[in-house]
Amino acid sequence: MKYPKIIQNLIDCFKKIPGVGEKTAERYVLALLEMEEETLDNFADYLKNLKHKIIRCKICHNLSEDEICDICKDMTRDHSTICVVEEPKNVFSFEKAGTYLGTYHVLDGLISPLEGIRPENINIASLLERVEKENIKEVIIAVKACVEGETTAMYIAKKLEDKNVKVSKIAYGIPLGADMGYIDASTLEISLENRQQIHN
Amino acid sequence: MKYPKIIQNLIDCFKKIPGVGEKTAERYVLALLEMEEETLDNFADYLKNLKHKIIRCKICHNLSEDEICDICKDMTRDHSTICVVEEPKNVFSFEKAGTYLGTYHVLDGLISPLEGIRPENINIASLLERVEKENIKEVIIAVKACVEGETTAMYIAKKLEDKNVKVSKIAYGIPLGADMGYIDASTLEISLENRQQIHN
Repeated sequence: MKYPKIIQNLIDCFKKIPGVGEKTAERYVLALLEMEEETLDNFADYLKNLKHKIIRCKICHNLSEDEICDICKDMTRDHSTICVVEEPKNVFSFEKAGTYLGTYHVLDGLISPLEGIRPENINIASLLERVEKENIKEVIIAVKACVEGETTAMYIAKKLEDKNVKVSKIAYGIPLGADMGYIDASTLEISLENRQQIHN
Repeated sequence: MKYPKIIQNLIDCFKKIPGVGEKTAERYVLALLEMEEETLDNFADYLKNLKHKIIRCKICHNLSEDEICDICKDMTRDHSTICVVEEPKNVFSFEKAGTYLGTYHVLDGLISPLEGIRPENINIASLLERVEKENIKEVIIAVKACVEGETTAMYIAKKLEDKNVKVSKIAYGIPLGADMGYIDASTLEISLENRQQIHN
């Protein structure tokens, strides 16, 4: 004997989300049972419409409800700077920080020969095209510090070498407020390597 | 600037589940975006039907798709033994263990004068009625070991004192395989108190 069928089905749905196991899924479904019917109806409607309503921005590949996303549409932003990120969620992280006022470009992956992800499998061609066609002054590469991130950054930098555009990458080092005792050796190394002179 | 509206709405829905915060909800919704449309449609349908399809069993108050739940319907089970639990999920825990073959009674709470939960607010009357009307030989109280659990157990035991029925409660003690070093003092105390003689 197991849960009633619809409960078991819903548990199985939750278990499809990465990081949600049997116990967690059970807990979620039993919690949902306590909720108002209206809340569940809305929840269901949003789920049903998610894939229909969310598309990728034609310019930057960010998640969007329209062909062009709100950021690309926003003419008060600096359209001469592109911040290149791996995934759509990185855009939202930067937007939450709120200080970056340029546009973005979502790669949807990083170059990884080991996993068979080649430059043509991610949105690099459209980035190069944007640099070619729009009046871009700076491309900031903001991908994570790892072999794939480094490879991707180098590839993009190389491709933009002879275009009249500044290419930079974000600073890697010790996060603000972090306890130095808990920082890994590679981060310590890079923080030393990228040290900034204060005075002579 | 935030997430597209439907993503934000879905994040807000997930955040209503106890234990799901902003970050987790974001992660779930972004994972759902990667799923097949059909999977999401099914997920939505199950959510929509959850409240309509799931009712409480008229006999034991367990979650059920019918008026009488599968356990109460099952005539191969021992209908002379009732295991009294706090919540529906406890039924499923016992069922997963698979060794208990009697019926259940879901209280939907424990007596708690502090929180204003009195015996008449939980399903005790229907339990007493079952003992009165059905041919019950034993009532096993299987609620958690805490002040409210103890109060509830004592109350039920008292109410059944002069009925011709055995009342027992599950054993509290050290869980199997647990490291003795990590067991709290109260559990150690109760495990000593309830020790079982092996021989003279």
